[in-house]
Amino acid sequence: MSDAKFVEDLVDKDDFAQWYLNLVYKAGLADESPVRGCMTIKPYGYALWENMQRAMDDRIKATGHENAYFPLFIPSSFLEREAEHVEGFAPEVAVVTRAGGEELTEPLVVRPTSETLIGHMYAKWVQSYRDLPLLLNQWCNVVRWEKRTRPFLRTTEFLWQEGHTVHRTEEDAERETLLILTDVYLDFFLRELAIPGIPGLKTESQKFPGALRTYTIEAMMGDGKALQSATSHNLGQNFAHSFDIKFQDADGDVKHAWTTSWGSSTRMVGGLIMVHGDESGLRMPPRVAPIQAMIVPIWRKEAEREKVAELVEEVERALRGAGVRVRADWREERPGFKYNDWELKGVPIRIEIGPRDAQNGQVVLVPRTNRAAKESVSKDAVAQRVPELLGEIHQTLFDSALAFRKSRTYQVTSYDEFREIMADKQRLGFIEAWWCGDGDCEAVIKDDTQATIRCLPLEHPEGSGLCVRCGRPAAAWAIFAKAY
Amino acid sequence: MSDAKFVEDLVDKDDFAQWYLNLVYKAGLADESPVRGCMTIKPYGYALWENMQRAMDDRIKATGHENAYFPLFIPSSFLEREAEHVEGFAPEVAVVTRAGGEELTEPLVVRPTSETLIGHMYAKWVQSYRDLPLLLNQWCNVVRWEKRTRPFLRTTEFLWQEGHTVHRTEEDAERETLLILTDVYLDFFLRELAIPGIPGLKTESQKFPGALRTYTIEAMMGDGKALQSATSHNLGQNFAHSFDIKFQDADGDVKHAWTTSWGSSTRMVGGLIMVHGDESGLRMPPRVAPIQAMIVPIWRKEAEREKVAELVEEVERALRGAGVRVRADWREERPGFKYNDWELKGVPIRIEIGPRDAQNGQVVLVPRTNRAAKESVSKDAVAQRVPELLGEIHQTLFDSALAFRKSRTYQVTSYDEFREIMADKQRLGFIEAWWCGDGDCEAVIKDDTQATIRCLPLEHPEGSGLCVRCGRPAAAWAIFAKAY
Repeated sequence: MSDAKFVEDLVDKDDFAQWYLNLVYKAGLADESPVRGCMTIKPYGYALWENMQRAMDDRIKATGHENAYFPLFIPSSFLEREAEHVEGFAPEVAVVTRAGGEELTEPLVVRPTSETLIGHMYAKWVQSYRDLPLLLNQWCNVVRWEKRTRPFLRTTEFLWQEGHTVHRTEEDAERETLLILTDVYLDFFLRELAIPGIPGLKTESQKFPGALRTYTIEAMMGDGKALQSATSHNLGQNFAHSFDIKFQDADGDVKHAWTTSWGSSTRMVGGLIMVHGDESGLRMPPRVAPIQAMIVPIWRKEAEREKVAELVEEVERALRGAGVRVRADWREERPGFKYNDWELKGVPIRIEIGPRDAQNGQVVLVPRTNRAAKESVSKDAVAQRVPELLGEIHQTLFDSALAFRKSRTYQVTSYDEFREIMADKQRLGFIEAWWCGDGDCEAVIKDDTQATIRCLPLEHPEGSGLCVRCGRPAAAWAIFAKAY
Repeated sequence: MSDAKFVEDLVDKDDFAQWYLNLVYKAGLADESPVRGCMTIKPYGYALWENMQRAMDDRIKATGHENAYFPLFIPSSFLEREAEHVEGFAPEVAVVTRAGGEELTEPLVVRPTSETLIGHMYAKWVQSYRDLPLLLNQWCNVVRWEKRTRPFLRTTEFLWQEGHTVHRTEEDAERETLLILTDVYLDFFLRELAIPGIPGLKTESQKFPGALRTYTIEAMMGDGKALQSATSHNLGQNFAHSFDIKFQDADGDVKHAWTTSWGSSTRMVGGLIMVHGDESGLRMPPRVAPIQAMIVPIWRKEAEREKVAELVEEVERALRGAGVRVRADWREERPGFKYNDWELKGVPIRIEIGPRDAQNGQVVLVPRTNRAAKESVSKDAVAQRVPELLGEIHQTLFDSALAFRKSRTYQVTSYDEFREIMADKQRLGFIEAWWCGDGDCEAVIKDDTQATIRCLPLEHPEGSGLCVRCGRPAAAWAIFAKAY
């Protein structure tokens, strides 16, 4: 397909779902696969994921956790030991019933999440309060048999990290749950993805099956819907009871431990696309962008090409030395084609180098966030200016995502207004309002508007008010939205 | 279990299989799991794997490959498209027959390797000679239902990288296969794991199911047996035919492509243990060691502790600055306990810091490879000496593995001698000999001695001779050994 045709297809951001799919496939992030609901992550998408993984892993380790690896398969009886957990996950598991040419006596579930198997191992490893806290994480694939799938956002198999920790007291477990929420996840969203996520508490109806409390980072997508982007669960003593995770405390008593779990996945790639993408394609947050700067050489005659090539090489070397992920596009295509292509792929900075630039020892920097803001920079200043500009682009992406979120966030006291906003595609967004705390009321709102409580945000107004729907005295300040 | 008791258990390296298991479990590399044949990789083992992964991944990328990710599940019909391939893998696959609460119409195989699924995707991606070469790799888990398992060496689920490439010509595919064998795998074994692997060609009976030719790195373990440690396959046009991977060449003709695949796995961890481990425990090759230097502070009185702590901190800072993975062991245990513990875990350098050292501004370095070679070093020289000593330890490990291999390698012309060596546990090793090239002869040798042809080494004597068993004119120089 020609590029012009493609850009045409892409422009229609009004059909957000189709725009998203176009972007995923045409920017080369992913492809379909012959297995229902599973995708193939292509090199450009995987390079993005590797950068995200590295940045997340650094934070996980910096907060005292170590990585380990637990088996893919879970005996199906394990799932059944925690009543809420099995109810939540049993309907969507994939089951191995045959292996090595024989029927298995006990079927094996392909892990949808690993609390149960890890709980079993922890019961073995934890004996004394001296063994606590136990702070592990694993990077792996998980499988949940979803009815409706969409690349990155909801796939049958996905890649993620799942942290699993064991603590001596409830306070320790709660502190861990919140540490992960803010110092690992929120920090990652703000500083790596340039996404202004909102940390908050899930309601009972939305919490993780088996958890005491689930915390979440919720982010607003480009269509005003919410994406649950990472979650951190205080599991209380539920799994410790089901799997017998006990320890002898300093006082000699044997006690059940307190556990947590927390996860973030390739779903974040979908969030990044839907928050930052525009009519021309992706906009990669600079810190995780697979390519941070793409040099497009411009020449007509062979003699020009040589001059240009010299400067291109010099700039590449200088930028690499400055730690910038840079490439040069020497394909035999016209410059306009390349501009479109790298805008589609969301490369933060385009560097144009033509014959006149070569002569003057300068280059032209074009930020993906604002084509009009192109600037000429002396070749000697490139290694300083490009990292600086990457920082500015990060800030621009963040500011524009935050401005959009604010423009689509409504503090509402009337249920009529609530319903109007949720029914209006042009206004759709987050509604902040008081809520009575009753799950039935929450359910009615969902039936009426498709909006769910995304979270009870950690930051909220003082005082209290009346529930936006039922008018009873409120128990909490809530964020309502339609969600992915 | 007390440490003394453990070291006792460990000493008996004569029972090599039991020694190996002891080491894996007691050094905290891995644990069993509730799923038959699957292991849990514990943090110390996983940190080792992460370092190995990073070093391997760097080489894979430096040779022009990119990472991607393909689905875990493969439609079972895919496996059947390549006749040899299905024969090789069908008996050991795990099969998902039920998912999302329903029976699947087509069962899904949990990938034992991904040639078939990736072949399907490549058929879609490759259209023109301009799309070639296509050079991808993936890091993932695979499952093979093995009858007898052993942690790291042979587990039902294991972690690996599998590279899959597509080329325009047979020469290109062969060049790739050998590039991976030598520049990626062999280089990794020599320079990261300090293992003198031998690169060579597999015979027909030992090649990958569906390959034209399989190359391998074979290494000698501490009991004289061989471990196939990484393999690189020239798949010819077999998978291109089965999956219809075709391209329009520059001459306008549509041709079938040539493909390769190559893999290395957590099995290498087992190799590292069995090559370098000794009676006191593991010996980690310094470049991939999770901890390269462990500081053991020594003190009696509290005043001493403070003085010692100051120097410990200074040394830690200096070593970290020099890029050394260093830790200090402040546990309330006697120094001897800690020495044993870190020797068991194979930390390359122990750094002892006592009150007198603190006073004199020096530390004692004890290399894991030779306790007697302890040396005092001024604190100002530590950041220079430790990296140097790590390099020396790497060389010592390599030299001693090579010397052992040489001492257990026999060039043999008599089949009687061949059988004697293979029957003698004290002499067991590699036999280098001429071979007629006949698979039947190879099979007879295996029946007689349990030895298989590990490879036809790339480096071999000129000229020719007579087959060590049948006396017919030889076709190749071969390495025979019992194998894991």
